[in-house]
Amino acid sequence: MQWREPPAIYFQDPGSPAERSSYLVELHADDGGSYDVVNDASSPAARECCAQQSSARHNWEMNYQEAAIYLQEGENNDKFFTHPKNAKALAAYLFAHNHLFYLMELSTALLLLLLSLCEAPAVPMLRLGIFVHATLELFALIVVVFELSMKMRWLGFQTFIRHKRTMVKTCVLFVQFIEAIVVLVRQTSHVRITRALRCIFLVDCRYCGAVRRNLRQIFQSLPPFIDILLLLLFFMVIFAILGFYLFSPNHSDPYFNTLENSLVNLFVLLTTSNFPDVMMPSYARNPWSCVFFIVYLSIELYFIMNLLLAVVFDTFNDIEKRKFKSLLLHKRTAIQHAYRLLVTKQRPSGISFKHFEGLLRFYKPRMCARERYLTFKALNQSNTPLVSLKDFYNFYEVVGLKWKAKRNREHWFDDLPRTAFLIFKGINILVKSRVFQYTMYTVVAVNGIWILVETFMLQGGNFFSRNVPWSYIVFLTIYGVELLLKTTGLGPVEYLSSGWNLFDFSVTLFAFLGLMALAFNMEPFYFIVVLRPLQLLRLFKLKKRYRNVLDTMFELFPRMASLGLTLLIFYYCFAIVGMEFFAGVVYPNCCNTSTVADSYRWVNHTVGNKTVVEEGYYYLNNFDNILNSFVTLFELTVVNDWYIIMEGVTSQTTHWSRLYFMTFYIVTMVVMTIIVAFILDAFVFRMNYTRKNQDSEEDNGIVLEKEISKEEVIGIIELYKRTSAATETAQLQKIVLQMDKYGQMSTVFLGRRSRTKSDLSMKMYEEEIQEWYEEHSRKEESQTPLQEPASASSSSLKPLSLRQRSQTVI
Amino acid sequence: MQWREPPAIYFQDPGSPAERSSYLVELHADDGGSYDVVNDASSPAARECCAQQSSARHNWEMNYQEAAIYLQEGENNDKFFTHPKNAKALAAYLFAHNHLFYLMELSTALLLLLLSLCEAPAVPMLRLGIFVHATLELFALIVVVFELSMKMRWLGFQTFIRHKRTMVKTCVLFVQFIEAIVVLVRQTSHVRITRALRCIFLVDCRYCGAVRRNLRQIFQSLPPFIDILLLLLFFMVIFAILGFYLFSPNHSDPYFNTLENSLVNLFVLLTTSNFPDVMMPSYARNPWSCVFFIVYLSIELYFIMNLLLAVVFDTFNDIEKRKFKSLLLHKRTAIQHAYRLLVTKQRPSGISFKHFEGLLRFYKPRMCARERYLTFKALNQSNTPLVSLKDFYNFYEVVGLKWKAKRNREHWFDDLPRTAFLIFKGINILVKSRVFQYTMYTVVAVNGIWILVETFMLQGGNFFSRNVPWSYIVFLTIYGVELLLKTTGLGPVEYLSSGWNLFDFSVTLFAFLGLMALAFNMEPFYFIVVLRPLQLLRLFKLKKRYRNVLDTMFELFPRMASLGLTLLIFYYCFAIVGMEFFAGVVYPNCCNTSTVADSYRWVNHTVGNKTVVEEGYYYLNNFDNILNSFVTLFELTVVNDWYIIMEGVTSQTTHWSRLYFMTFYIVTMVVMTIIVAFILDAFVFRMNYTRKNQDSEEDNGIVLEKEISKEEVIGIIELYKRTSAATETAQLQKIVLQMDKYGQMSTVFLGRRSRTKSDLSMKMYEEEIQEWYEEHSRKEESQTPLQEPASASSSSLKPLSLRQRSQTVI
Repeated sequence: MQWREPPAIYFQDPGSPAERSSYLVELHADDGGSYDVVNDASSPAARECCAQQSSARHNWEMNYQEAAIYLQEGENNDKFFTHPKNAKALAAYLFAHNHLFYLMELSTALLLLLLSLCEAPAVPMLRLGIFVHATLELFALIVVVFELSMKMRWLGFQTFIRHKRTMVKTCVLFVQFIEAIVVLVRQTSHVRITRALRCIFLVDCRYCGAVRRNLRQIFQSLPPFIDILLLLLFFMVIFAILGFYLFSPNHSDPYFNTLENSLVNLFVLLTTSNFPDVMMPSYARNPWSCVFFIVYLSIELYFIMNLLLAVVFDTFNDIEKRKFKSLLLHKRTAIQHAYRLLVTKQRPSGISFKHFEGLLRFYKPRMCARERYLTFKALNQSNTPLVSLKDFYNFYEVVGLKWKAKRNREHWFDDLPRTAFLIFKGINILVKSRVFQYTMYTVVAVNGIWILVETFMLQGGNFFSRNVPWSYIVFLTIYGVELLLKTTGLGPVEYLSSGWNLFDFSVTLFAFLGLMALAFNMEPFYFIVVLRPLQLLRLFKLKKRYRNVLDTMFELFPRMASLGLTLLIFYYCFAIVGMEFFAGVVYPNCCNTSTVADSYRWVNHTVGNKTVVEEGYYYLNNFDNILNSFVTLFELTVVNDWYIIMEGVTSQTTHWSRLYFMTFYIVTMVVMTIIVAFILDAFVFRMNYTRKNQDSEEDNGIVLEKEISKEEVIGIIELYKRTSAATETAQLQKIVLQMDKYGQMSTVFLGRRSRTKSDLSMKMYEEEIQEWYEEHSRKEESQTPLQEPASASSSSLKPLSLRQRSQTVI
Repeated sequence: MQWREPPAIYFQDPGSPAERSSYLVELHADDGGSYDVVNDASSPAARECCAQQSSARHNWEMNYQEAAIYLQEGENNDKFFTHPKNAKALAAYLFAHNHLFYLMELSTALLLLLLSLCEAPAVPMLRLGIFVHATLELFALIVVVFELSMKMRWLGFQTFIRHKRTMVKTCVLFVQFIEAIVVLVRQTSHVRITRALRCIFLVDCRYCGAVRRNLRQIFQSLPPFIDILLLLLFFMVIFAILGFYLFSPNHSDPYFNTLENSLVNLFVLLTTSNFPDVMMPSYARNPWSCVFFIVYLSIELYFIMNLLLAVVFDTFNDIEKRKFKSLLLHKRTAIQHAYRLLVTKQRPSGISFKHFEGLLRFYKPRMCARERYLTFKALNQSNTPLVSLKDFYNFYEVVGLKWKAKRNREHWFDDLPRTAFLIFKGINILVKSRVFQYTMYTVVAVNGIWILVETFMLQGGNFFSRNVPWSYIVFLTIYGVELLLKTTGLGPVEYLSSGWNLFDFSVTLFAFLGLMALAFNMEPFYFIVVLRPLQLLRLFKLKKRYRNVLDTMFELFPRMASLGLTLLIFYYCFAIVGMEFFAGVVYPNCCNTSTVADSYRWVNHTVGNKTVVEEGYYYLNNFDNILNSFVTLFELTVVNDWYIIMEGVTSQTTHWSRLYFMTFYIVTMVVMTIIVAFILDAFVFRMNYTRKNQDSEEDNGIVLEKEISKEEVIGIIELYKRTSAATETAQLQKIVLQMDKYGQMSTVFLGRRSRTKSDLSMKMYEEEIQEWYEEHSRKEESQTPLQEPASASSSSLKPLSLRQRSQTVI
């Protein structure tokens, strides 16, 4: 990997400029050599670009930019047919692809969603006048219109109306607009179930890509899911008929007296929510009737429900793999496109550093010159000064690395005077020793037992006493000393680079804050004191399986969060619908006609001379505002006793309300099954991975080592000087100065990044990946001649084939 | 596969007899050439064997028998160290290895288990006097003693006391014996929790091998399971402390007033059984307290519980593969041992038919001569008359095939006269046509809707009317006609060979019986009428996924049944313990001091002039006899509202009773997780398999084709004539006659068997299997020289190495 060529060759000027111009020039050159269209472009960027048309540098700049766009599209899995096709589109593309725009998108979407806190059945504290919230809504919708128009500008009308998600969004926008205006005019809210569709604005956000992927995955898993669901429902119907025939002669059995009741109760039984109760009347009459229920539950709950999980898990597995494959190939194609834009006529075998640097300026503007060069060197595996296509394929793996000079000094205190060094070295050794670690574990364990015993002794009452308990102070002191020792022994940077230490640090900090709260008697912060037991989590570092599990947990966290968000979006839809139909329906002592009246009771009667409050509390599970709805929906998700909520609402409305609850159950079942399948898949994958790579167990990510000599640095400085990039030059000069200081001829840099799921998959599917590549390139080869004649006619839709054509011409 | 050598060579006498004698002779020849020990053997078999010592035939017979024993051991996964080591052991082995003995084992075990129906808290109808059931128990235990002594005789004392399961059984037997005698003497039952151990007698049965495997798998999955369980409990403790601090100031909250309550309620919350209720008092006070419960459930229920499944699933997967591997290698070793006993000095390269036939006579006594020869031919893949070791490795795959002459006639009616033939042919074509099939599906669907509508119209009351509804008769007639057409068109044998047709047949038969019951007014059989909707299951044939799912379901059925049995064994243990502690504890209106008193209420009061019965029914969930206990335990397994049962019992006994219920929950959680993992594994495996072998989707098992010429048959007859086996000769003669009749020179036979999981695994792990074999043979080679010096000293423990040694001598 390390070689010592005269590095100057890297920095040669690519010589002949404008070997290939940017697509703007190219496209219109195809149209007949006139640049009129480009000149018409109204955005300043486009105008500027046209003014400098003849300049080779400018053409290169355009190439860099387009290559960077291709690479971004590859990374974000954006399809290439949305690639900007002309200068106007490019301007819109650039406008719509930066974090400011994304943030605007996100905030309008959130604003629209949060409006439901203040609309009609509002949270009491947040209620707003109809005029206020309707105006806010209208404002947000206008912003969305603006966003959409930018998108249309970028995509062009043709692509725009073919893009399904965008079209749905447009329709929803239209409906919302009309409704908002109607509300403003009538000054009263009508039944607006369409508010449930507001979610689409959030889903369409650039930042919510993970949610979109989850939704896609859910929809892809649906067909097999529905098949098994039908099987489930079919058995349910058969058993409902059976149950009706068997148990309806028993008049004391309210569960099977009609076919509808029979069906509903068997549906609820599927969730086990009414289990022993539904059996009891018939069981009391004839003990053998339990066989019916046992058979039903065995088939439906223990067999078909698990089958459902199996089918979803299997589909999920399959989809994950296909997704990984298509993303991999998509990235590869993106790299190919970028590569074609960066090679020169003179040297078609690779990309020179100059062009690579130009690409990175657009792709990662924040990268410093040193990192750019290191990335280039890391990519370059051959002995030539050019990065070949084969090397360039690793672009995505390498560009994410964070580079740092490899320290010669092992510890932060190596430069200190001798005495200090020895002290710190001692601390370092102590802190790293097993004895110290196990002592700390013992302390934590003792602390845990202490807390448990202390809490057990309290038995209600005065546990937030004025005087701080001494045990708290003792343990906190020990933890404080440990923290101090570790920070000094390892250096704050190394200390905080470990997730576990970070955890220790924050828990100790919280404990300290809790102590403050206790000492200064700040009641609202007492809850911090209660977080002390979290310290005990450290004990789980002791066993390898726990470390594995917790590591995987942290790796999974982003994905889990996006799944949670997906679930919340479903919640939102159902909450809106629920609020529109069931707001204010349930109240204390409301459902006296139903079988669940007890749960809704609120009686305040006097027995003897004591007031006894008989509370059923279930009236709290209502749809009176969106927060209450969310809690109610969570209770429905947990499933236990959900039929009490369902029956309560049903008794106050019609029995069609059951449809709402049953649909919700099925939807959450889908999402939950997907979540379970996801967790299963991720863990099994991870464990298989560890089993396959027993040796690489302890590594914390991907590390690459590269050496740079002084001449190379000076070479880069020369290059930058020519392009007059002052900050970059200054940065590099600093490196040279440092080398001079330590008298080194070269410095070794370490590139690090954490391991992603994609890296793991790469390793797991190693063999298959090669096949995919071959298959892919075969397919491409076979497609190219076929597409060539067609590309001229459909040029506006297929920039790719155009690009390919122009490539073959050269 | 098919070759035409002069077949006579197969039937040559192996010439030199006694190339190697059976292990009996061998072993004692090792002892110094005297046969005294053998002569001492008291069993008649051994005496007979010694009398004929000098006869070569006899020695061959012994070799055949031992080879057959090896092959049986390989098939049943019996370890070779239990291989009988001398004539006495052999006699005991043969005595203890036949179905009569197995049946005796099973029935004594069942008798012991069933005794708990009649003992102390007995099922009222089955109550027996103490004297009666104690005597019965003593009798059964004596039978077990006899069985164990036979086993000791076969294994030898040394092996016997090293065999863990047998030793545990002996101890349990001893305890049970003493207790039974104590009961007989005292004439009263004491607290006999040890009755729960009776299960071991069932588990140890030969027929319960699958249960043993399941138990082993459960125990192997335990370590990772316990790890995650600890994580679960740890979080539970932390949250219990948190919950206690947060909610105990609220005096209207009974769930968190002490740390113990807090813990118990969070444990119950883990099962979601008390979900919205446990949250309600604090939620009513402060809506934000729901965050505590949402976080707890998200972490514990949705994350760690799924993690548990993932870990168990992963372990399960791994264990399944390792199990398959070890069984495969075990079988291979068994085949090697058998092979060594069957080759002759003159021809060490393979087994001749004569010896193979001798082996099969012991291995599968019911096999007819034709099948033996066909098995031999199917094994023999080379052109030589001998089966080499490589071919012999396929023994287990081939020996299970059922051979049938390939019919020249396609249909059963081919031999009928022309007119009849045409009629039947027409029916055949009609029955096989898609139109007919889809018509039937339509009829079934219409029938389904009809039943649904009919039931819906009934709405309680007179649904078992005297006059049979005409729709019933119409549909039954259609099904009857279909059945008739199919039977005549396909022939009864082909018709019933399909599982689906069998299903149709039995459902139609049941429907007919139901009609009879209706017509002749036999009330107890009315339930048959109710089975009609099952007919609808036929609709699921329409879609491939359902066929796949249902096929897999049937394939899984034996394994599922054994898992169910395993669960029942756990139930039994818990039922006994529950009966001993909680029998008669729960009764109507019993638990007035507890929070669940309502569920146990039974009030018969008068409102106005109507008697209203207020029934809680939960007093029915008791441990008053073993059947009730089973139902109660099933309710605990389903988990919903289990805390009502727990709290009821707890309020009548001590709060330590909770331990029983919590332990039961954890145990069923383990078993249920294993069941889920098993279903997941089986389905995912199956689906991967179908994905891998898209083409072989439609095949119904493994089929092999072999041709036998007339000369070959005559050759076999000659062979059998010499050994004077009259029945075999007659059988074979029949084949020759048949060939003569049709003027054929040869007949083609088809060998069929259904595909097993092992076959699927073989195909799935194809590549790895080769590696395993190589690794295995490497290991064996490296072990052989090592063991050789040791084998003389440990000869009584290691018959294998002895065998190997004797092999190397020759």
